[in-house]
Amino acid sequence: MLIAKVIGTTISTIKDEKLHSRKLLILRQTDETGAVFGKPYVAVDTVDAGIGDLVLTAAGSSARQTNLTKDSPVDSVIMAVIDSLEVDGTVTFRKS
Amino acid sequence: MLIAKVIGTTISTIKDEKLHSRKLLILRQTDETGAVFGKPYVAVDTVDAGIGDLVLTAAGSSARQTNLTKDSPVDSVIMAVIDSLEVDGTVTFRKS
Amino acid sequence: MLIAKVIGTTISTIKDEKLHSRKLLILRQTDETGAVFGKPYVAVDTVDAGIGDLVLTAAGSSARQTNLTKDSPVDSVIMAVIDSLEVDGTVTFRKS
Amino acid sequence: MLIAKVIGTTISTIKDEKLHSRKLLILRQTDETGAVFGKPYVAVDTVDAGIGDLVLTAAGSSARQTNLTKDSPVDSVIMAVIDSLEVDGTVTFRKS
Amino acid sequence: MLIAKVIGTTISTIKDEKLHSRKLLILRQTDETGAVFGKPYVAVDTVDAGIGDLVLTAAGSSARQTNLTKDSPVDSVIMAVIDSLEVDGTVTFRKS
Repeated sequence: MLIAKVIGTTISTIKDEKLHSRKLLILRQTDETGAVFGKPYVAVDTVDAGIGDLVLTAAGSSARQTNLTKDSPVDSVIMAVIDSLEVDGTVTFRKS
Repeated sequence: MLIAKVIGTTISTIKDEKLHSRKLLILRQTDETGAVFGKPYVAVDTVDAGIGDLVLTAAGSSARQTNLTKDSPVDSVIMAVIDSLEVDGTVTFRKS
Repeated sequence: MLIAKVIGTTISTIKDEKLHSRKLLILRQTDETGAVFGKPYVAVDTVDAGIGDLVLTAAGSSARQTNLTKDSPVDSVIMAVIDSLEVDGTVTFRKS
Repeated sequence: MLIAKVIGTTISTIKDEKLHSRKLLILRQTDETGAVFGKPYVAVDTVDAGIGDLVLTAAGSSARQTNLTKDSPVDSVIMAVIDSLEVDGTVTFRKS
Repeated sequence: MLIAKVIGTTISTIKDEKLHSRKLLILRQTDETGAVFGKPYVAVDTVDAGIGDLVLTAAGSSARQTNLTKDSPVDSVIMAVIDSLEVDGTVTFRKS
């Protein structure tokens, strides 16, 4: 899984029928402190994540293993909201 | 999913039998403003996307989860046309 | 799918039994004009592609969705030979 | 599989129901000597790995082929703890 | 598939039960001449490859399509030993 920050939202009227009423959020990967890097990508939200939240995303066929994404043409899913991260005994991120 | 711009078309007479009458479009990934970067890739269109449209593409086995791509040897599918993108409360892209 | 150019052949006496009599070709990815870049990779040919041809390759489990690759340990397949590519209204590649 | 070092832990109260009581560890890829490089990623631990251990992680649908990860929305799993690595006849890493 | 050189071995006492008695080798990707580049990765050997051999590896779910790797948590498999490679009519590698 990747550690990522939710930075935005997408709106699409025309989309695959299995995606209706699914929330497609824009994310950027982060390191263990929550600092973003790299280009944005889009994932289906299954845990009611909010803008600014640090989350975990799973990619590929694993993205279809939730109740909301089963059999859907989606390759990335937010499956956890991060409360805190700890590296080498130090808390590097805590949700505010 | 990746945010991408449809930039062109491919024509292939010789192809896998499951791809006959499928539209294979050329795309380049974009950031949240629609600015393209990176090298072109090809995806099956399932939402009647047009040249210049910003779309979402799903990769891997997820690309086969639409009615048009089921059981086909394709690893990328256009499954949504983007109307608008919003990042940090600001609209960064709106379809013209 | 990736746009790629067939540049060579591989010969392997010792290989998985499901690969016997399969043609494993060497490719390099290209841009929309057919200019190669990046490192070589190998794909199973299912469309009788020739050296120098521009083709499309599908990766991952999608590579096993052809009659010749079903249930085989292969992660890349040539599933189309490109006749022409057009970007922004201009033909950028035509098979000679 | 990737050679990776376990560097930290994640805590998530809100997560997919299939992930409850699963240990999600932070890792960074290493070379054959155990030197880390690249950005952190997160994997499910199935072998009781500890902080500082060198491990192997499997990605994609393969991450769901263990008893602890079956049908879960996870795309990376720790499936082995490394005792030692040997390259060109020389031991390059040995667990202390 | 990737062209890769077998450079070493891994030893793991603690691993997923499906991996017992499987040989996990360290590889580095090569170009068409056998010159290595990039960081090491690990694959299951199914063709009795030796240190120094040039081989082909398949990734993802395709890595589980051999008799030795079925249903195992592995994402890379050696499925062929390369005898020779030919690019643009010239032999670029021949097994010695």
